[in-house]
Amino acid sequence: MSTPKILILGAGYGGLLTTLGLQQRLNYNEAEITLVNKHDYHFITTWLHEPAAGTAPADHARVDLHKIIDTNKVNLIKGTVESIDPKAQSVKLADGKELPYDHLVIGLGPEPETFGIEGLREHAFSIRSINAVLQIREHIEYMFAKYKNEPGREDYITFVVGGAGFTGIEFLGELGDRIPELCQEFDVDPSLVKIYNVEAAPTALPGFDKDLVDYAMNILQRKGIEFRLNTPIKKCTPDGVELATGEFIKTKTVVWSGGVRGNSIVEKSGFEVMRGRVKVDEYLRAPGYENVFVVGDCALIFNDEGRPYPPTAQIAIQEGENLARNLSSIVRGEKISLVPFVPALQGTLASLGKGEGMGLVGTKKVFGTTAALFKKGSDLRYLYKIGGLGLALKKVKL
Amino acid sequence: MSTPKILILGAGYGGLLTTLGLQQRLNYNEAEITLVNKHDYHFITTWLHEPAAGTAPADHARVDLHKIIDTNKVNLIKGTVESIDPKAQSVKLADGKELPYDHLVIGLGPEPETFGIEGLREHAFSIRSINAVLQIREHIEYMFAKYKNEPGREDYITFVVGGAGFTGIEFLGELGDRIPELCQEFDVDPSLVKIYNVEAAPTALPGFDKDLVDYAMNILQRKGIEFRLNTPIKKCTPDGVELATGEFIKTKTVVWSGGVRGNSIVEKSGFEVMRGRVKVDEYLRAPGYENVFVVGDCALIFNDEGRPYPPTAQIAIQEGENLARNLSSIVRGEKISLVPFVPALQGTLASLGKGEGMGLVGTKKVFGTTAALFKKGSDLRYLYKIGGLGLALKKVKL
Repeated sequence: MSTPKILILGAGYGGLLTTLGLQQRLNYNEAEITLVNKHDYHFITTWLHEPAAGTAPADHARVDLHKIIDTNKVNLIKGTVESIDPKAQSVKLADGKELPYDHLVIGLGPEPETFGIEGLREHAFSIRSINAVLQIREHIEYMFAKYKNEPGREDYITFVVGGAGFTGIEFLGELGDRIPELCQEFDVDPSLVKIYNVEAAPTALPGFDKDLVDYAMNILQRKGIEFRLNTPIKKCTPDGVELATGEFIKTKTVVWSGGVRGNSIVEKSGFEVMRGRVKVDEYLRAPGYENVFVVGDCALIFNDEGRPYPPTAQIAIQEGENLARNLSSIVRGEKISLVPFVPALQGTLASLGKGEGMGLVGTKKVFGTTAALFKKGSDLRYLYKIGGLGLALKKVKL
Repeated sequence: MSTPKILILGAGYGGLLTTLGLQQRLNYNEAEITLVNKHDYHFITTWLHEPAAGTAPADHARVDLHKIIDTNKVNLIKGTVESIDPKAQSVKLADGKELPYDHLVIGLGPEPETFGIEGLREHAFSIRSINAVLQIREHIEYMFAKYKNEPGREDYITFVVGGAGFTGIEFLGELGDRIPELCQEFDVDPSLVKIYNVEAAPTALPGFDKDLVDYAMNILQRKGIEFRLNTPIKKCTPDGVELATGEFIKTKTVVWSGGVRGNSIVEKSGFEVMRGRVKVDEYLRAPGYENVFVVGDCALIFNDEGRPYPPTAQIAIQEGENLARNLSSIVRGEKISLVPFVPALQGTLASLGKGEGMGLVGTKKVFGTTAALFKKGSDLRYLYKIGGLGLALKKVKL
């Protein structure tokens, strides 16, 4: 019998934790593990709002895969997945390479969900990768530079964030910190800069407790952010956004954080999806395939009330850990010991800029520096988990 | 008899040194001195190639006028000059304000000379002000960010500098230092980045000694700069530059340093000009006007061989010092003691990036770190002159 081939697509939270778990649990001869990733780094998605606003260097959110993956045990391939053929048990990369597998882990990242809003895909940025946030940061700075050379063009220093979910709110917190720095650097009157948050739902952070939402909005308003709640975006153009209220905000900078969906590759490969996400079973398997597992943004899991869990880093990490355990049992022929996946929600923390945050630790509400401190603690634990103490100390800003 | 009104337009080298000299020589009651400047800062033009490339912050090249001007003696007005009426002895600002004068000092800055090259004015940057260089820096960074999101678009990471004069060469030196940093930050293969210098003359740095030119070109070539000498630019478009050879270089970044001319306001105000510059007499007076003086980029002075001096900081500084002395005598009615202006050329030094340079100290050629050190010395002397030891120590990078 030949060594089973485990192929993992994507080194996001889910894919990386699966790989690290397998690398730890299995011996060299038990499986041939391959990890395919677009870049030679993993990035800490939950930090991307910082480099996007420019409050932290992008490198900070990037972890070199060669530093945490044992390439004696794992075959690391830098490549872009083009399609999956689950019947032929093979994955095709953009460079034409074909990778056969016995067990497949799909950990591909999400795509922005634009809900069919006209022009959003073409004219809005989204906080989705290191490269994307570098462009957002540079674009914002460039707008300040352009404004200094074309006074009167206040649209250059007007910024619109679409969506008041987690990512949007965290980005606004950083942007609120960053704008005064940019005003100083480019010698721009801060009162001329406008930052709008536009959200279709009647509240910011839908689903969160009112106390937490009020706290977050208050902090952000003090940083100069104007909210347009209950206000869907009708259209996005190169010159601004048209709101359902008829208001037109002139701007060259729209950052869309209103929603994500699963990866279109999954859908195109014949899996049954809802908004790009595969409804997996309790062992994270795709329907109809014993050997295809889905973790992270492309996995759809429902809670006891029949509502889908939001695609968070927390759940993706737990999925990766669970799957690494189960896959090890599978390649060892110990199917009896498979453990069903059950998310263990430990709370949610949103940062609101430097030293500020809010959220839930377990079920307890926390605010301000306490929340910021708990968030640092959680970041520290994650980094320790994937790269040991060295990485944790190197990356966490204290 | 009322106090004579001295009006100085522009706080560049010439205007600033005139103002500082008058402030030192004259008592409160001897003249009413007014300095009009577009910004509330003076900038060190000879340093602008650094913030343009991003190797130094723009603030570094900026000196707050309030820190060096004694506003008890000098009326400092932030405003843009719109026109001069030398017959009515009045200057009009863009905000409509009219400023009457008895003695006028024109120290307005230059404009790029594009020699009628099509599209250059519209599509090329120029290293002419703090705001302009901030945009160049941000534009370059933005191009790297865009390239990361649109692989294959090598035009984004292709940079063209038009003109191999002083400014062009110094900018190339900095750009050569900056590109590797940007490649690291944006994770771009440095071998894909192209920097071209295009110059119509058969040599870089026309007028310089061959040894110095060879040294400079060698340093720049080692930094990856490709020269196209003897090659006029035919046309500049939003997508690149067409050379007279027929070659088309695809790029989104053209920095034009091929020449400057005087300020068009001077020409529009009825003064006789050659390429925007007024041929002044030995007391820096405009022809036909005893009470209008021109210093800096708008002043045209010929050497003994009948060739015009290039508009340099060195000469502008000396003009300002000479004029302050003469104007003091004039307002005191001591016309007999006027001193004709004679440039005292002390050499020329060009930087070629960090720790590198070349040029003449007196008539002696200097290279490498020696040249860089002499240049620092010269910068230090200038800063000491305008702002004392405090400014000198604050601004000079050692």
